[in-house]
Amino acid sequence: MIKKLQQLMKEKNIHYYIIPTDDDHQSENVGEYFQARKYFSGFTGSAGTLLVTLNNAFLWTDGRYFIQAAKELSDDIKLMKMNTEGYPSLLEFLSQNIKEDETLAFDGKVMNASFVYQLESLVSYPLHIECIDLITPLWKDRPAMSCEKAFLYDKKYHGMETKDKLSQIREYMNEEKCDAHLIASLDDIAWIFNIRGYDIKCTPVVLAYALIHQDSAYLYMQDNAYDETITSELKKQGVTVKGYYDVYKDVKALNGQVLVDLSNVNYELASSLNCDVVDENNPSQYLKCIKNEVEVKNTIQAHIKDGVAVTKFMYWLKNNVGKIEMNEINTAEYLTSLRAKQDLFIEPSFSTISAYGKNAALMHYHATKEHASPLENKGFLLVDSGGQYYDGTTDITRTFVLGEISDIQKKHFTLVLKGMLNLQRIKFLHGQTGIDLDVLSRAPMWNEGIDYQCGTGHGVGHLLCVHEGPNEFRPKSRTGCPVALQVGMITTDEPGIYLEGQYGIRLENELLCQKDIKNEYGQYMSFKCLTMVPLDLDGIDETMLSYDEKLALNDYHKTVYQTISPYLTKKEKAWLQKYTREI
Amino acid sequence: MIKKLQQLMKEKNIHYYIIPTDDDHQSENVGEYFQARKYFSGFTGSAGTLLVTLNNAFLWTDGRYFIQAAKELSDDIKLMKMNTEGYPSLLEFLSQNIKEDETLAFDGKVMNASFVYQLESLVSYPLHIECIDLITPLWKDRPAMSCEKAFLYDKKYHGMETKDKLSQIREYMNEEKCDAHLIASLDDIAWIFNIRGYDIKCTPVVLAYALIHQDSAYLYMQDNAYDETITSELKKQGVTVKGYYDVYKDVKALNGQVLVDLSNVNYELASSLNCDVVDENNPSQYLKCIKNEVEVKNTIQAHIKDGVAVTKFMYWLKNNVGKIEMNEINTAEYLTSLRAKQDLFIEPSFSTISAYGKNAALMHYHATKEHASPLENKGFLLVDSGGQYYDGTTDITRTFVLGEISDIQKKHFTLVLKGMLNLQRIKFLHGQTGIDLDVLSRAPMWNEGIDYQCGTGHGVGHLLCVHEGPNEFRPKSRTGCPVALQVGMITTDEPGIYLEGQYGIRLENELLCQKDIKNEYGQYMSFKCLTMVPLDLDGIDETMLSYDEKLALNDYHKTVYQTISPYLTKKEKAWLQKYTREI
Repeated sequence: MIKKLQQLMKEKNIHYYIIPTDDDHQSENVGEYFQARKYFSGFTGSAGTLLVTLNNAFLWTDGRYFIQAAKELSDDIKLMKMNTEGYPSLLEFLSQNIKEDETLAFDGKVMNASFVYQLESLVSYPLHIECIDLITPLWKDRPAMSCEKAFLYDKKYHGMETKDKLSQIREYMNEEKCDAHLIASLDDIAWIFNIRGYDIKCTPVVLAYALIHQDSAYLYMQDNAYDETITSELKKQGVTVKGYYDVYKDVKALNGQVLVDLSNVNYELASSLNCDVVDENNPSQYLKCIKNEVEVKNTIQAHIKDGVAVTKFMYWLKNNVGKIEMNEINTAEYLTSLRAKQDLFIEPSFSTISAYGKNAALMHYHATKEHASPLENKGFLLVDSGGQYYDGTTDITRTFVLGEISDIQKKHFTLVLKGMLNLQRIKFLHGQTGIDLDVLSRAPMWNEGIDYQCGTGHGVGHLLCVHEGPNEFRPKSRTGCPVALQVGMITTDEPGIYLEGQYGIRLENELLCQKDIKNEYGQYMSFKCLTMVPLDLDGIDETMLSYDEKLALNDYHKTVYQTISPYLTKKEKAWLQKYTREI
Repeated sequence: MIKKLQQLMKEKNIHYYIIPTDDDHQSENVGEYFQARKYFSGFTGSAGTLLVTLNNAFLWTDGRYFIQAAKELSDDIKLMKMNTEGYPSLLEFLSQNIKEDETLAFDGKVMNASFVYQLESLVSYPLHIECIDLITPLWKDRPAMSCEKAFLYDKKYHGMETKDKLSQIREYMNEEKCDAHLIASLDDIAWIFNIRGYDIKCTPVVLAYALIHQDSAYLYMQDNAYDETITSELKKQGVTVKGYYDVYKDVKALNGQVLVDLSNVNYELASSLNCDVVDENNPSQYLKCIKNEVEVKNTIQAHIKDGVAVTKFMYWLKNNVGKIEMNEINTAEYLTSLRAKQDLFIEPSFSTISAYGKNAALMHYHATKEHASPLENKGFLLVDSGGQYYDGTTDITRTFVLGEISDIQKKHFTLVLKGMLNLQRIKFLHGQTGIDLDVLSRAPMWNEGIDYQCGTGHGVGHLLCVHEGPNEFRPKSRTGCPVALQVGMITTDEPGIYLEGQYGIRLENELLCQKDIKNEYGQYMSFKCLTMVPLDLDGIDETMLSYDEKLALNDYHKTVYQTISPYLTKKEKAWLQKYTREI
C-alpha cells in the first residue's frame, strides 16, 4: 500500500503525505470511513499518525501502543515512539526535514488546523501545503462515510433547551467580542442542539458542523441524517438546518471576529476563514461539563441500571469461573448482554476492556476473538466498561479476584482501593481543581514506589463521549489552566497498578461534585459516588485499611446493597449481602 | 501625629502620603529606624500600610492583625481590612480617588517600585509623584539607621565561594541577555557575597545593595559596616566594595538590559534606571533555596542542638507547670536561654510566639510583658520559635498539653498531627511542587470541615531569613508558576487548627527534600525531617491513627530519642524515653 501511495505522490509532485487518525471533526473515535491510517499501515490502535515520504514511511504512536504497533506495522514503516528519547515528534521531524522547495500534503478535512499552524510557525520559510485526498483513489472498497439518522434528544433527559444554551454561548461571544462562533467538535454540537445519532460507534453523535451568530444559528448535517421533525424542532429553537458541506462556503463569507477552537477544527475549514480568529476553547466545553439537575437525576438512574448489570456479571463471574469455559471476549459479551437488558440501553460507551492476568498490565489492552485468554480460577480479571443509556453515560472499572491471589497481589489491590477511596471521600474547599486533589489517590502507590503513569480520572459526557473535558484528575494540567471543581461535574476516579508481564489492577468509580457544608472557612465540596458495584472484598487486606478507609468502604458497600439488591434474584441478593458485608 | 503630618502635607501641597512598613530593601522585618508606620499610627503589627490624606488617615493590614489593629490604632485612623468584602485595596483606593491635579508622595526609598508602577498603570492620567521624606522632620528622637559591623561567613558553613555564585548568576544573566543585575534584597546579597550582620533583629543580614556585571561586581555597604578583612576577601572573589548610597548614582549610568526584580527594589532606586529593565525574580532566589551539601550537613547539626534546647524546654514545662509561676513571656525567655546555651547560637530566628489557650487561636499572637497570660496545668500552650546558629536557621512549632484536655481537643490535636505526618512521609515522583502536595496535610482537617486559612509551609534560609521562597506548601501558588521540589530544598510543614475564643494547635517540622529510589516510573523524592523534638503524646487519640501513621510517628520518635538523648541529663533522658515511646 505504501509503495502505491509513494507512486501517486511522485506523480503529483508531493514529498510528504500525512495520514492522521482523525475524522473531519477531530473526534477521539472515528467511523470506518476514516480509518485510512489503519488501512495503509496495518496498525489497528486507536491513535497514531502515518507520515509517508517518497522513500520512507513512519508511524507515530504513544506508549499504550508501542508493543502492538511493533507487531502490526508492515515492514516498510518505521515505528516512532512518542515522548521517548531518541525519537523526534512529528512536528520536530517535519520542521527539521521539509526543504523549501518540497510539498507537504494531506486530506485537509482530516488534518488538525492547530498542528499545521504550529508547523508553519516552526519553519522559517513559507511551506508548500496541498490539501489533496490520495486515500480514496487507492483504498479499494473504502466504506462510505456514515450517515445514520439523527434523533432529537428528549428534554426529560437533558433538561435545557437549545435556545437557552445558545443564549449562554452568545453571552460568552459578546464578552470575547466575537460576531460568530464556528464549531466542528461533534460532542459540543450534540449538546448544544440536543441531537444525538449513530455516526460513531459507542459515541452517540451526528456528523455535523455549526455556526452561531448573535441572531441566527446554523446546523450543517448530511441530507439523509435529518427529517422534518428535526428541522421543525430546531426552527423553534432558532436554528436553521443546512447541508453538511455548505459550511465550507459559509465560513468564507464571515467577517469581524470569529471564535474558533483551532485545535478542534480541521485545516481545510480553518483555512477557509478570511477574518480575525479568536482561538479559544469552545464555550460549550465549560457549559456541558456542569451537568444540570435533570441530567444529574437521569445519570443517577443510568448508574443504578449499570450497577445492576455489572453486579449480576460479578455474581456470575465469581460463581462460574473455573466451572464453565470463559475467556476475555465471551465474558465481555456476557456483560454487554446484561447491560442490554437494562431499560433505555443503547450501546456500550466504549469497547470493553476485559483483560486477564498479565494482559491487564497493558492499560488499553483489547482482546480479539482470535487472541482471547481463557480465564482460570486464580488471579485478577480487569474489566473496564460502560454503557450509553438514554438517561446517561457510564464508565466503570472493577478488578475481580477469580481465585487464589498472592499476598503481594492483595497488597497492590488494597493500595489501589485506598487511593480510590481517598479521593472519593475527600471534603474540600471550593476553588480546588482536579490537579490539586490528584495526589490523594496517587499517594498510596507513590509511597510504595509505584506510579500509574496516566491521569487519575476524566470527565464523562451525558449520553455523549465517555471522555470529556475540561474537568479531570491528574498530577499536571494539560492546558496550564485547570478548572475549579464545580457542582454538577462528573469525573472518574480510577487509580491503578500495572506490572508488565504480571498483572494489572484498576478500580474506577464516577464521582459527582456537590456542595457540602458552608461555614466560616468557606463553601466545602464533596463527591457523591455514582457507580454502584461492589469492590471485590476477596482482594482486600483489611489490616492495611485505616479506620476512616474502612468506614468509607463499609458506607459505600451499604449504599450499593440498598440500591442494587431490589433488582436482583434471591440468590444474587444473598451473594451481594456477603460481598457488601461490613469489614 | 497624623494632624502634624497633614499640616506638613498642606504646606508642601501634597494630597496623599503613604507610609509603608518597609525599609530601603523591602525586607519582611525591618529595623527600628524604619518603624515609621508604627510611630505614626500606633499599630505595632509587623505588616500594614498607612495612607494619610489632608483630612483622613487609613491603615491597611491583613487578617492576622484585624483585632490588634482595631485596639491599637489611634481614633483618627480608619482600619482597612485587606482581602475583606467592602474594603478596597490600597491600590484600588488610590486609583479611584487621586485626582489629576493632586500629588501623591512618600519616601521613595521605602516604597515598593512594583506597587507604584501598578498604580500608574491603573490610572488613565499621569500621576504627580513626589519622593519626599516627611517622616524625619516629624519623628523626634527617630532612632539612627542600623550600621552594625558585618562579618564574613565562613566557608565551612556555607560551602560555596562568592565567585562561584557569581558565575551561576552571570550564566542566568547571559540567558536573559542582561548586561547588569541590580539587587536590593538583603538575603540575596548576604547569600551571594557570603556576608552576614546584625542590621535586622533575628535576620542576620547587612544593609547593602549589589550590582553585578559580566566582568565586575559591586557591593554597596555603609562605611562603618565593613573593614579591611571584608574588602580584601571580597576582592579575591572579584567584588569591589563601595559606599552604601553610591548605588543610586551608579544605576543612573547603566545601559543595555538590566535584570531587576521590581517587587524587591525601592521606587527611588528603580526610577533612577535609564535603561531597559528585565523584571524577573532574582536568580539567587532559585539558587539559594537549594541548599548545598555543606549547608545541609550544618543545618542538620543546628537542628540537633535546637532539638536539644526545645526538648529540655518541653521536659521543664511539662514537669513544672502548675507548680511554679509561668506565663507566656517567661516561658519564651526560658526557651531562649536554653537555645543560648547551645554551641554557635546567635539569636532567635524570629520573635517567639508563646500562646496559651485562646490566645493561640490568633495565628501570629505575640504576648507582651504587660499582657502575658499565666499558664495553668490544663489546655494547650503553642510555642513557635527558632534559632539562628552559625551552622543554620531553625523554625519549629510544638503545641504542648499542659494538663487536662477535652476529647474534642484531643481529636483536633490528632488531626493536625495526621496532616503533618501525611506530608512528611510522602514519597513522590520528581516534578511535583509544594502546591501539588499541600492537600496531603490539609485533608484531615478538611474532612472535618476545618481549614487553617494559610499556607502549610515556607522555605527556610541558611543563617538567613526564616521565611524564604520560592519553595512552599500551599493550596494555590502565589506566583502562578510554582517550582518543583528539588534535592536540598528545606520547607516547613505546619498545619494547624485555630478556633477563635477557644484554642490553637500547630505542629511544625522542617522537611529536607532528598532523592528516594529511582525505578521504571522515574526518580522518587521524599523528605528527611530535620526537626528533632517529640510530638506531645498526651495530645494524641491513638484510635484515630492508621497503621501507617502510627508507624511514621513511632519511627520519628525513635529517631528523636536516638538523636537527642545523648545530650540530656539522666532525668530528662528517662522522661524522653517515655515521651517517645512506641504507641
